[in-house]
Amino acid sequence: MRKILVIGSGKSTSYLIKYLLDKSIEEELHIIVGDINIQNAKKLIGSHENANAITLDVFDKSSRQAAIENADIVVSMLPARFHVEVAKDCITYRKNMVTASYVSDDMQKLNHAVTEKGLVFMNEIGVDPGIDHMSAIKVIDSIRDKGGKMILFESFTGGLVAPESDTNLWNYKFTWNPRNVVVAGQGSAAKFLQEDSYKYIPYNRLFRRTEFLEIDGYGRFEAYANRDSLKYQSIYGLNSIKTLYRGTIRRVGFSRAWNMFVQLGLTDDSYSINDSENMSYRDFINAFLPYSPTDSTELKFRHALKIDQDDIVWDKLEELDIFSDTKMVKIKRGTPAQILQKILMDSWTLEADDKDMIVMYHKFGYELDGKQHQIDSTMVTIGEDQTYTAMAKTVGLPVAIATLSILNEKITTPGVQIPITKEVYEPILKELENFGIKFSEKEVPYLGYNPLNN
Amino acid sequence: MRKILVIGSGKSTSYLIKYLLDKSIEEELHIIVGDINIQNAKKLIGSHENANAITLDVFDKSSRQAAIENADIVVSMLPARFHVEVAKDCITYRKNMVTASYVSDDMQKLNHAVTEKGLVFMNEIGVDPGIDHMSAIKVIDSIRDKGGKMILFESFTGGLVAPESDTNLWNYKFTWNPRNVVVAGQGSAAKFLQEDSYKYIPYNRLFRRTEFLEIDGYGRFEAYANRDSLKYQSIYGLNSIKTLYRGTIRRVGFSRAWNMFVQLGLTDDSYSINDSENMSYRDFINAFLPYSPTDSTELKFRHALKIDQDDIVWDKLEELDIFSDTKMVKIKRGTPAQILQKILMDSWTLEADDKDMIVMYHKFGYELDGKQHQIDSTMVTIGEDQTYTAMAKTVGLPVAIATLSILNEKITTPGVQIPITKEVYEPILKELENFGIKFSEKEVPYLGYNPLNN
Repeated sequence: MRKILVIGSGKSTSYLIKYLLDKSIEEELHIIVGDINIQNAKKLIGSHENANAITLDVFDKSSRQAAIENADIVVSMLPARFHVEVAKDCITYRKNMVTASYVSDDMQKLNHAVTEKGLVFMNEIGVDPGIDHMSAIKVIDSIRDKGGKMILFESFTGGLVAPESDTNLWNYKFTWNPRNVVVAGQGSAAKFLQEDSYKYIPYNRLFRRTEFLEIDGYGRFEAYANRDSLKYQSIYGLNSIKTLYRGTIRRVGFSRAWNMFVQLGLTDDSYSINDSENMSYRDFINAFLPYSPTDSTELKFRHALKIDQDDIVWDKLEELDIFSDTKMVKIKRGTPAQILQKILMDSWTLEADDKDMIVMYHKFGYELDGKQHQIDSTMVTIGEDQTYTAMAKTVGLPVAIATLSILNEKITTPGVQIPITKEVYEPILKELENFGIKFSEKEVPYLGYNPLNN
Repeated sequence: MRKILVIGSGKSTSYLIKYLLDKSIEEELHIIVGDINIQNAKKLIGSHENANAITLDVFDKSSRQAAIENADIVVSMLPARFHVEVAKDCITYRKNMVTASYVSDDMQKLNHAVTEKGLVFMNEIGVDPGIDHMSAIKVIDSIRDKGGKMILFESFTGGLVAPESDTNLWNYKFTWNPRNVVVAGQGSAAKFLQEDSYKYIPYNRLFRRTEFLEIDGYGRFEAYANRDSLKYQSIYGLNSIKTLYRGTIRRVGFSRAWNMFVQLGLTDDSYSINDSENMSYRDFINAFLPYSPTDSTELKFRHALKIDQDDIVWDKLEELDIFSDTKMVKIKRGTPAQILQKILMDSWTLEADDKDMIVMYHKFGYELDGKQHQIDSTMVTIGEDQTYTAMAKTVGLPVAIATLSILNEKITTPGVQIPITKEVYEPILKELENFGIKFSEKEVPYLGYNPLNN
């Protein structure tokens, strides 16, 4: 039996573990799921004979090293900051490793040692990053193979609620880490390329400069710019591209309403609110509005943010009960972002039978034989339930497939890497199609970036 | 002769040195002005026999220590971050010390050693901080002395251009470090107290929530909130105050126009603009607006920031030539803030015969015998020329007076301190009046904080 150690058994591991278990007899696998709390691990492996759960504290060096030494390959599904200790042990004990996380500087620094020992450390092989890389590079490679020259690449991903579970005015529920949603876009300006010009959007304008996207059968979406649109420019070999833009997908209207929170300062995570534990939601909102002995919090809010009496944004705000004087914050010295997250979780937490949805949209513009062309590629995946979510599926399956491919020596090129080589993306994308994770590509007229056309 | 070492001979030292020179014969003083570049020091001391300039590199330990050992008292007019090495030497050689800077954590840590040796380290004795402390505490002490209870304290300071030199639509020119003006207000939200409630204003709203101030003979001003309104709450003994607000003064309309730069992202100092050295001012502005093959930068700007065709804000922007396609940025990989500063310096640099102006406004609300009262206290100082500026006067004179008072053992209480004791503020404020730095106080009806009344 070949032993696969999966460290972490959180939300994103259900499909990963299921895939490996389903293959375990034919492939002679034994799956060891290690977590500091093995309750969920036990639930996910059930009574399968080819698996066991072990208590694993990743900070306990000796038990961590023993578990890694005992495995044939290691999958780390821990939060990204915990990978590096696992990675060092994998070098020590000559084990290949797979993560769904961005390659950190610390991880990149291990490349020399990893390569020298002939190991494969595959990272960024979840959904975003992961499926986005693979599905984009596949089309980019095919355009290059036929002699085309890339001039535009726009790529959008969103974790949303499935249409059948879409029951609120924001058309949004938390399907992943709510905190990341609340603080999304903060820091330096979003930076991207439009028609050969670098463009910058500061945080306070980010949700006012969205683009619209249409997906057959799913209707209209919008997207706001990611901060890091240029991050993969050289890795993808797009150094002479004219338009390069990466964004996050929401349903139309979300961003305009979310901007109200941004403008008022409710997404700030850099300081604490005095006496927040004793505040009502209304008190919290009022702390960002001028004092008045007479004016209502509602009118001050409408005035500050110039919200007309018949603006749908107002209904979205009221739906969240932000003006309630009975619902209490209860968080001690919370940051505005922490308190806003709490308020949103009241309304945006998935119900027991709600399903989530992953949406991806790529646009590829290129020149071939003196003409301009465009291919649009889209993917929609809907979850089954709250364990087998679309997020867990799109994150976990590529990880699982890559893990087995490395174990079976189908992926062999050593180094700290991401899935942008044909050796990696071709078999994985193909197998993902068997699970319904499939991109539909179509030729569309090339429009370039032009707001009149969008 | 008693030897006073003044380290630094920058913009704020003209009056400081002049005051000490004028007193040097009667007080038997010899002034040593040390600077890494002694050109300005020589200009300021002229041919005065009781002074000399020495080349002093504050990073050269041996010459720094020799100069300090040789002095009877040390005035550091260096940028705040350089004080601490000077301070440590002052402890070693048992010299008193004076600075106009905020007490840094490093400086505060020296308090024990300073007190043990019986030394006086006077800080924050310029204008803001400095005159603001002294003039406020004087009134607060007088209110307390008569049995009053403080319920409101608002304090505003501004460095502006004098009315006779006020020649642009912004009613503003740079009279001090332009960089500080460009990045003012960034970081965490401004925090203050209004009628017992903590209030928070995020940076992107800071310039839209101003207060108006009227000063007899000088007309109307506005003020935006400082980030640190609560900083001196306990130091001033205002722990049970209801309203506590500190702000920065501008002429009316400045903030609304400045907000355009904030909204567009032009004040961001956290990242660099690609290829900025080859950009025109117009290219720079356009980098923050969406690409269009046809629409003008002007119309995109008006649309993005919702500026009506007859809005005076537009004239203010045009006055700065921000849409020029011939004026070039010329700064290599500049941050937006650096580039904006350059553009503003074209228009906002003082002309040879321009004068500056310092404006201060305090409001003191208090309860006495069951009634509410308010005292408003204002001060306006206008500069003489570009050497003897209002800024240099209001920063340098309190420093100079404090230095002589410490030398003459009129200020003796040891420790790292700021000028909030009667021993310090009473004689200094009195002497400042001889130089025309005078507060006019008047009783006004107590209104509390109420936007309807402001």
